[in-house]
Formats: sequence, C-alpha cells, structure tokens
Amino acid sequence: MLSQQILQCIDASRQRYVEELLHLLRIPSVSTYSQHAPDVRAAADWVAGQLRRLSFQTRVCETAGHPVVLAERTDVPGMPTLLVYGHYDVQPPEPLDEWKSPPFSPVIRDGYVYARGATDDKGQFFTYLKAIEAILSIEKKLPINVKVLIEGEEEITSPSLGPFLAEHKQDLRADFIAISDGSQYKFGIPAISYGLRGLCYLQMELQGPRFDLHSGSFGGLVENPILVLANVLARLKNEDGTIAIPGFYEDVLPLEEWERREMASLNFDEEALKEYLGVASLPGEPGYTPMERKTARPTLDANGIWGGFAGEGSKTIIPARAGAKVSMRLVPNQDPDKIHKAFEKYVRSLVPQGMHLNVRNLNGAKPVLAARDRKPVLAAARAIEAGFGKRPVFIREGGSIPIVNLFQETLEVQDILLLGWGCPDDGAHSPNERFFLDDFHSGIRSAAALLYELAALQAPGA
Amino acid sequence: MLSQQILQCIDASRQRYVEELLHLLRIPSVSTYSQHAPDVRAAADWVAGQLRRLSFQTRVCETAGHPVVLAERTDVPGMPTLLVYGHYDVQPPEPLDEWKSPPFSPVIRDGYVYARGATDDKGQFFTYLKAIEAILSIEKKLPINVKVLIEGEEEITSPSLGPFLAEHKQDLRADFIAISDGSQYKFGIPAISYGLRGLCYLQMELQGPRFDLHSGSFGGLVENPILVLANVLARLKNEDGTIAIPGFYEDVLPLEEWERREMASLNFDEEALKEYLGVASLPGEPGYTPMERKTARPTLDANGIWGGFAGEGSKTIIPARAGAKVSMRLVPNQDPDKIHKAFEKYVRSLVPQGMHLNVRNLNGAKPVLAARDRKPVLAAARAIEAGFGKRPVFIREGGSIPIVNLFQETLEVQDILLLGWGCPDDGAHSPNERFFLDDFHSGIRSAAALLYELAALQAPGA
Repeated sequence: MLSQQILQCIDASRQRYVEELLHLLRIPSVSTYSQHAPDVRAAADWVAGQLRRLSFQTRVCETAGHPVVLAERTDVPGMPTLLVYGHYDVQPPEPLDEWKSPPFSPVIRDGYVYARGATDDKGQFFTYLKAIEAILSIEKKLPINVKVLIEGEEEITSPSLGPFLAEHKQDLRADFIAISDGSQYKFGIPAISYGLRGLCYLQMELQGPRFDLHSGSFGGLVENPILVLANVLARLKNEDGTIAIPGFYEDVLPLEEWERREMASLNFDEEALKEYLGVASLPGEPGYTPMERKTARPTLDANGIWGGFAGEGSKTIIPARAGAKVSMRLVPNQDPDKIHKAFEKYVRSLVPQGMHLNVRNLNGAKPVLAARDRKPVLAAARAIEAGFGKRPVFIREGGSIPIVNLFQETLEVQDILLLGWGCPDDGAHSPNERFFLDDFHSGIRSAAALLYELAALQAPGA
Repeated sequence: MLSQQILQCIDASRQRYVEELLHLLRIPSVSTYSQHAPDVRAAADWVAGQLRRLSFQTRVCETAGHPVVLAERTDVPGMPTLLVYGHYDVQPPEPLDEWKSPPFSPVIRDGYVYARGATDDKGQFFTYLKAIEAILSIEKKLPINVKVLIEGEEEITSPSLGPFLAEHKQDLRADFIAISDGSQYKFGIPAISYGLRGLCYLQMELQGPRFDLHSGSFGGLVENPILVLANVLARLKNEDGTIAIPGFYEDVLPLEEWERREMASLNFDEEALKEYLGVASLPGEPGYTPMERKTARPTLDANGIWGGFAGEGSKTIIPARAGAKVSMRLVPNQDPDKIHKAFEKYVRSLVPQGMHLNVRNLNGAKPVLAARDRKPVLAAARAIEAGFGKRPVFIREGGSIPIVNLFQETLEVQDILLLGWGCPDDGAHSPNERFFLDDFHSGIRSAAALLYELAALQAPGA
C-alpha cells in the first residue's frame, strides 16, 4: 500500500520537481524539423540521465530517426511489470508571434508553466520518474517491476517505433502499459481514456503550367492550380458538414445508446469552449453532440495550404503549383490505409485531366477502443482518486496515440492505461501551451499510487 | 525623314547598346519589396544619368513611394511633343530555383538576354533613349519635342503616379504618348495594341478560432478557415468556367463581329502555346476562342494562397487563419471599384457567420480600348515597318498598363501608342524572363523612325 511518507516526500519535493521539469522544457526537441535533431538527442540524453540516477538499466537506443530511451528496473521477482510510455519530442512552436513568452523559455504564471511540450508530453511522462524517485527514496525498492520507454518521434507519429518494438519485444514484455499523454475530462475532473481516434494525414500537390505565368497574358487559357485545389478541398465535405469521400463512413462503428447517455451525462460545456476558442458556434456533423463529434465521430481538416505568391504586395501570376495538407481523424473500425486509398481515388476524380496530382501519406494511426471493466483499469481509477482526490470519469479522446496500436499488435499487452494528467485547454499543439502545476503534482502522486495499486492485484484474493 | 546615317549609326552601335542595357538589368529594382527600395532608386538614378547625357532637362522626382524620372528636350518650336513612358521597376524574381541563371546577372544565350526586367520593361523603354542618342549624334537635334517619364511603381500598379501627373500636368503636356511595355503579336510579327485589359487585385483573409488548435482535440467542432477559404474560391467560378460573382459581366462590352473575324485571321497557334506552357488543353469561358479569352474577355485567377502549416512534415492543427490573393482581368466597360464591391459582397455571403473576413484592394486598373484609324497610329505603323521590316498587326493585350487610364484622364492625350517590342513568350513575370536582342535592335530603329513619322504629320498636306 502507498505509504503516507511517500506522499509527504512528493509534497515536500514539489518545488524541485518543477525546477527539473523546466530544464527539460528548455530543450527545443522539435522532431519534425531536421535542424533540431541535436536538440531532440539532447532531450533523450537528459531523460536517460534521470533514469540512471534511479538505478534503472538505461540505454539511449539508435533508430532510423530520433533515439528511443529504454530503461528498466526489474528486481521484484514474482511481481508484474508496468511499462511506462512517453515522448520527449514536441510539436513545432509556430506561429511564434502568438506566444506571450518564448516557447522554449518556460515561464510560470498563475500556477501554470507555459512552454512547448509542457503538457504534451514532457510534463506528463516526467511524473512517473518523480513518483519512482519518491518511492525509492523512502522504500529503497519498487512494489512492481517497471520498464520505461520514452521516444522522440511521437509528434511525427513514431515511424521508427514499430521496428523498434519488434526488435525489443523481449526487453519490453510487460503486463500493463501506462501512458499519460492526454488530458483529464476538464479542469478538476480527472479521467481515464478508453478510446482514441485514429489518423490519416495526407499531402497533395498540384502542378499546372510548367512555370508561373503572367495572369494578364495567360488569364483565360490555363487551369489555375490554386483554384483547382480549392475546388477539390471544397468537395471533401458536403453542405451539412459530413465527409463526401465515397465509402468514408463504411467501417464506422455506431455509438451505443448507453455510451451516448454517458457522454451526455458529462455535461460538456459548449459555452465555455466557444469562449475559449473565440468562435460563435460549434458546427459539425448533424445528429451528434459536440462531445460525440470531438471524440467518437470521424472528422476531416485541412492543416496547411500554399501556392503562388504569398508575400508582401501584389504579383500578377498564375502559379504553376499549389499544395495542401489534409488530415482525417478516424474512429473504430476505420483503417488509415483504406481511407487514404478512398481519399486519393476521390480526389483524382476531381482534378481536371492534364493537371498533375501527387498525394503523399505523411502519417497514420488506427483508432482505439479499450475495455473499461478490467482489474488494472479499476486499479488505475483508484490510483487517480488517491492522487487527485477525485474519482475519474471515463472518456474517449479526440486525439491519436499511434503507438497504442503498436503496443497492442507487437507486445500483445491487453491493458493499456491512458491516464491524462493535463487539461483540454492546455493548448497542446497551440501557442502558449501550458500545464497546471497542481495537475503535475497530482499526477506524480497518482503515478506513485498506481504502482502500489497494480502490485495489489497480485495479492491473495485480489 | 529618317536618314540612312541614323539607321547605320544604330546598327553600328548595337553591341554597345546591349552592354548598357546589361548595366540596367543588374540593378534588382523590385518595387514590391521594401528592402529593395535602394536598388529601385539606383535604377532611377542610372536612367536619369542616361537622359542627362542626351542634354535632357532631367529630374528624379520624389513621390510617396519610389521616384519618377522626368526629363524633356523641347527645343523644336512649332513641332508636336511626344511623351515616352516606361518603368524601371521589375516584378519579384521568385521562384528563384527555376532560373537557369540568376535573375539579376544577365546572361546572353542564343540571341536572347535573360534577366528579370529584360522585356518588362527595362529593355523596351531603353530603346527610345538609344534612338534619341543616335539621332542626336547624327543630326545634333530632334525632329520633334520629346518628354520622358520613367516610373518605378508600375509593377505595383503605380500608386504615386496619379498624384504625380496631376501635379505635373503642365510639364507633361504632349500630343502623343508612346509606351513600349507589351509584346508583338508573336515572334516575328510586330503589332500595335489598341486594347488593354483592366485589373482588380484583392486580398482576402479569414480568421476562425483565436489560435491554431489541435486537430484531434477540436476536429469536429470548429470551422476550418482553409476549408472555408477553399469553398469561397471554388464558388468564384461556375462549372463551365464563367465567373459566378453576381453582376460581374454586367458592363462587359460584347466583341464586334468584325473584331472576332480579325482575331481569327491571326491564326493563334494553340498547339505551340500548349507546348510552351506544358499543358494538355487551354480551358476557359465557353463560346470564345483562346485569342478572345486572353485579350477581350474578363478572367479571374488566384495569385497566391496561404494558411496553417506549410513546412516540412506534418503538424496536426486546425489553423486560426487563411488567406488568398485573387485578381480579375477586366475588359471595357468594367469598373475595378464596382467589381471589388461585387466580389466582396458575394464573398461575404459565402463566409459562415462568426468567421471574420477581411478583403483588401491591392490594386486596380481600368480597361482600355483605343482608336485605330487616327493619323498618329498609322504613323506608328509606318515606323514599325521601317524598324522591323514588317507591317504590324493590330491586337488587344491581355495585360494591364494602369497608367494608360491616368494619361487619358489626367493629361487628356488622345493618342496613346502601345508599341510592344517584346514577344509573348519572353516570360514577363516568370522565371527566365528574356528579350530577343534582334527585337531590342529593331525597337531602337522603330523608335527613331517614330520621331520622324510623327514630325511628318505636321508637314503641309499631312
């Protein structure tokens, strides 16, 4: 059982834990920018250093991309093994001019730490390291065996992790996996996520004339790649907001009535969200509540677009090229590859003959729907109650954690515990990303409690 | 009458004229980029130096923007006055990676000089300066009075020229204006342009949520500015390629039958153009030939688009903002301001309530249709025949020369002679812009002949 001394130790060390987190947040480990590769490695080394100080057998493993930090302390014979997953890489910070303080110069305001990666995911996985540190400082040993895997490619959807897991299948054998890379239901209401949306992220590029043309001399004679691209994008959704790609909804698992009732019971606060986003309404697929749309229904968004002259002033050209990034959030049982094919087939049918179209798959992830009534899940619920002082609710998340697929398929671990310590308005992927330091602290307490709750499952009569 | 010695002098000086042109082409006088302002001024000073050496009273006049070079040599009492107009500023050179040689390091290949501004307009207006130089070197005087106005804001559609003309109305009084800022009908077929399209160039920006959002956490809840922008752009044209803005065609002057017959007689080479552009077809407004569409019918193009994440890799955001530049080529009697209002009203009707739309007018120009049978026009035709050895054809140009409006309205000069020395495939506004040096030379000969042909109009019985 989790001792009071451990919780007291965690409470007493709060300030130091925060200061250590700030070190990690100062490292600009942006995985998608190749010029940041050295920073990404620096973050890996920093995390490895932390684990070595906890007497974990620690390796910084090379991959085709950014390194994986792999560590274990498995000196508790007869007890189960928990694998803790996290990622030390972060999203690009752009647009920089919207940050109140520089993304990699963490600042504490009103009980929040502001920095890129604060909540996604540096601040969250770090709670496990500090929980383990506190336990060891009091008990000199852990209640269960623990393995830690912190990767550096999550924000580019983990291209190297598949091969890595296959290669280290034995090293990674575990009974449960804990992932804190999401959020609570809302501020003050901790949650366990049993569902994740998948992802199909594509890039399309169009080529019209061989080079940019004078719009006066040639206007009226050539297809304009920007207008063709706009026409394609405009036809990806129907008037009512549903997605127009033929077959897109084919494999979508309908929401059960009980689940819709439960989601409704969470009283999703639409007014507060509109205020936060600065929007007048929350439009979307008809027949579904915002809560259902953001977690249990598939969506399509354009993430970026470019073409022609975007500089200062005016340039009267017909551009040769235009392109866009389009991503779709998927739900069970949609398959990213099947959706990619359906998207490309449909888009090709919309591009006029003679214009060149290129569609590239930038990344993908399968949706996840996990069991809720298994003992490890209930143990996690008790741990959160111990750490946050509140019973968690069960939710589905709108985001994707692609590696959950990999863990299920490669490591065959049934119990993947998705325990978000952050808040939905922490601004993950946005300017002014932040993490509430009370949540950071409660996360550490919950992580410590989790180790003991999982150990208790082995006790007689558990 | 133009003497043989003058033509011989021009032929003998050909090489030196080219070398002097290369000096001017090396100055990166890009008027739309503020950081190039010093280069723009350097070009003005260089042109002024040339005119001073020809004993022109020369001033480099300050404006709210880039300077205007104003010069005159009006020492031929009783003879009419020709005003020569040109511009020493150039388009931005982007995309740079498509240039075979650097845009501001002119290179001569296969009888062409390659550089930004070679044909638009440095190489063309320079022909008048060299023609005047040749005449003076032989005759020591000019056959008529000549004024020269070379501006530095044509590529940003001359914001300062309106006030400038109003202020210098007296200094600029003239009987004819000659402008060589267009092209021949095609390689080897010189032309006089009697029509120009107008322009309405707008920029629209959309703002959705307050900041970029995580597409997983918020996908399904908010309008995506890129998709809204795409939907707007997609509705600017109808399926058949006609422009969908209500009232857009209201003031369009229909083509006369004789004019359509004449255009048809020019045997526009569609195959050659497709080959040059690298396109499979020349789509456009139904019921009109490519020649009619590119010169005598209004068109709409997107010139640039931006929004969200356009960098390397993937970033799963819903962007806060997106924007596009859209320009419309206008024909008589469309009015740019009226078209701007119609565009903005229509676009506003397409933007969902609660999303912020901003439409800015980046520039505009009225279309032009000039008389073809007046004596000065016929005199220009004879000058071209003398210079190029071929009778010119009469054409309408697809491009705009906004200052023609200003000259007509402010200076009340009836005869504006549009004498293009370049070729349609010179790549004005495109990478690898060029000017055929034989055309440069023929242009100088024609410019010299023009002064004498215009002088002859004063002769008894002319």
